[in-house]
Amino acid sequence: MAKLNPNYRKLSAGYLFPEIARRVREYSAEHPDQTIYRLGIGNTTEPLTPTILQGLHDRVTALGERGTYTGYGDEQGEAELRDALVAYYAQRGVTLDPGEMFVSDGAKADAANIQNLFAQGSVMAIQNPAYPVYVDSNVVAGRTGEYDAAAGAYAGLRLLEGSPDNGWFAAPPGPEQDEQLDVVYLCSPNNPTGAVATREQLQAWVDYARQHRAVIIFDAAYAEFIADPELPRSIYEIEGARECAIELTSFSKFSGFTGVRLGWAVVPYALRTEDSEQGELNRMWNRRQSTFFNGASNIAQSGGVAALSEAGQRESRALVAYYMENARIIRSALRELGLDVTGGDNAPYLWVRTPTGPDGQPLGSWDFFDQLLREAQVVVTPGAGFGSAGEGYVRFSAFGHRENIEAAVQSIRGKLRLPER
Amino acid sequence: MAKLNPNYRKLSAGYLFPEIARRVREYSAEHPDQTIYRLGIGNTTEPLTPTILQGLHDRVTALGERGTYTGYGDEQGEAELRDALVAYYAQRGVTLDPGEMFVSDGAKADAANIQNLFAQGSVMAIQNPAYPVYVDSNVVAGRTGEYDAAAGAYAGLRLLEGSPDNGWFAAPPGPEQDEQLDVVYLCSPNNPTGAVATREQLQAWVDYARQHRAVIIFDAAYAEFIADPELPRSIYEIEGARECAIELTSFSKFSGFTGVRLGWAVVPYALRTEDSEQGELNRMWNRRQSTFFNGASNIAQSGGVAALSEAGQRESRALVAYYMENARIIRSALRELGLDVTGGDNAPYLWVRTPTGPDGQPLGSWDFFDQLLREAQVVVTPGAGFGSAGEGYVRFSAFGHRENIEAAVQSIRGKLRLPER
Repeated sequence: MAKLNPNYRKLSAGYLFPEIARRVREYSAEHPDQTIYRLGIGNTTEPLTPTILQGLHDRVTALGERGTYTGYGDEQGEAELRDALVAYYAQRGVTLDPGEMFVSDGAKADAANIQNLFAQGSVMAIQNPAYPVYVDSNVVAGRTGEYDAAAGAYAGLRLLEGSPDNGWFAAPPGPEQDEQLDVVYLCSPNNPTGAVATREQLQAWVDYARQHRAVIIFDAAYAEFIADPELPRSIYEIEGARECAIELTSFSKFSGFTGVRLGWAVVPYALRTEDSEQGELNRMWNRRQSTFFNGASNIAQSGGVAALSEAGQRESRALVAYYMENARIIRSALRELGLDVTGGDNAPYLWVRTPTGPDGQPLGSWDFFDQLLREAQVVVTPGAGFGSAGEGYVRFSAFGHRENIEAAVQSIRGKLRLPER
Repeated sequence: MAKLNPNYRKLSAGYLFPEIARRVREYSAEHPDQTIYRLGIGNTTEPLTPTILQGLHDRVTALGERGTYTGYGDEQGEAELRDALVAYYAQRGVTLDPGEMFVSDGAKADAANIQNLFAQGSVMAIQNPAYPVYVDSNVVAGRTGEYDAAAGAYAGLRLLEGSPDNGWFAAPPGPEQDEQLDVVYLCSPNNPTGAVATREQLQAWVDYARQHRAVIIFDAAYAEFIADPELPRSIYEIEGARECAIELTSFSKFSGFTGVRLGWAVVPYALRTEDSEQGELNRMWNRRQSTFFNGASNIAQSGGVAALSEAGQRESRALVAYYMENARIIRSALRELGLDVTGGDNAPYLWVRTPTGPDGQPLGSWDFFDQLLREAQVVVTPGAGFGSAGEGYVRFSAFGHRENIEAAVQSIRGKLRLPER
């Protein structure tokens, strides 16, 4: 008699994005004539750039010819793309080897699957708020107890509490705390807060991880949105990181590949755990990918090679600049209205504190979500959906056509009723 | 202190395909002038067909235009492709719903990940010999003990022993055996044996599964190679199957998408386990895919839609016919030499019994592999690599350019020294 993996039932029914979709659907049904402005999901909207299109078309054409057709490739990615990734890191002074690069179909899959490398009883530390995949993948893997609605957390996960005071990056446990974290997820630029870890903040985590033989999972999917040259874009810019950190990243937001699907993980040879020598984690991830995955689409991989060419990078940077101008427009309008906004300068997300409600208390995330939807027809993402520390915030995404962003901002300016300052 | 998932260390070091590659590399280094004929791996070699190429190019072009660009799509696949899959099943009289279709990046990933739906203590029944992913994914998930070299199996898995006597499809346990299997992997057309389950064999398994509330994982990746109209191509052609079976399948071999990456899983609404109502497994797989996956490449999905068009299907059937003519050529040559060959009539794999060795005993799989490599420079896959019941056999793959297949056959005919009949 087959039985279910019981861990799926622990996942709270009110999954964030479906719940947003439900509320928007309901509102639209009641107000069929209203235009809805969607600033909720971090989905790219601008077309692929010419160099990338050429790379994709060329590969499709090659697949149609007998001499250039290819079937299964290496599960870890095609040599040309892995070499291009190595060269890409070298541009910013980071030396890596093609054997440390694992091409994937996107950072989301890697972020969900990476936990499989670690022992069942590992203490997993996850930022609060955080991208839900880190939590949910560990729930499904059975590393948690039930969801504790009062605490807003699953029993068994160690949450790293973010707040304005720590710039939304909790520091590692201090020596007096004698606390052992085994695997630490850090996302920078952060989804949802838009905060970017400083060199000092990352160095503190790398020092902690080396001292305690913890492993950092560094999600750098938004690295290309960092404009400030003082901020690290790769964790390998930090001394000692290759002994203790895996980096996950993506072509999705940089080159508009959210639907094309392409990302990569870096698992350094130097990385080790308490119970393994250097190299074993690299070989294990290789084995994991060879067993559970069969390589990213070869067409997408050619698109990735094109994106990393000089022209491709230039065009991708223009795409990033377009979205970042959107961010500036949103931020400036929200600040004019007196809202407290962070993020949006080195990340495509703005993290906005909810205003005061009728009772003089700050509105809840979902209340402000509802207000923005009902008054201004703008969809955002409630911060509470990313964890309890996101309560009292909403996330605005800067992805969208310029005219839609401007219309959304116009709608907020004209229709949102905020308390007197 | 991070610790490894210890299950990875259980995976035998001598992973099949790397070991083959090692031996071929070694032989090539010693004999640099020899042409090697590769009939080992099931990798497609013929170019994509015109209708599919058009579908791929059109989608790339659409991604370059503002009005037709799309980012993230539904994790379960684009509506157009899911509808096309429903229509495709309807062609053979099987009625399914788009909500039961889950587009993926290939059957391998689905075959590896599907075990995650089931409880840790489930009794997993796997054919012997079998495609290694079924076994390895369960090893990594911690459902087995160590590899027992003497038994040629992992402790804790229930092997369904194939043999010429049962047509390489073991029957389910009989009523007198009172044995409870929870999840049963069946692959038909079978990789590696090339055998296809008859309607009666599948009906017996479906009856067993319904009676014992077991779930069948039916891997139909090679379904389109079935020429005999009496043989079932989908398990849903069998009465009662939608209550107890998940079907995994693929565009890889039908349409040459091994590198493009596209497959699908069918998880029927009617499917249930002992501890769930109908619908829950469908929703769980939806949740699994939404958490651990982000949809197949949208370009590949447009290729899939093209492949399922009338012209696309016609072209794909011509591709299949090409490979099946290869199979006929290999089979006929091997039989002329007195070898015992099955498969290759409704599947692109031929299953060949090893000849007698110098000591009068049948050669081992790896011995015949070495003989074929050294005498005829032909690479095959040792049956023992697929499980202990594959010992005494090798698998010939029919994928290859016609002239290479003919040259390989020529080399075997001219150079392989077989014992006198």
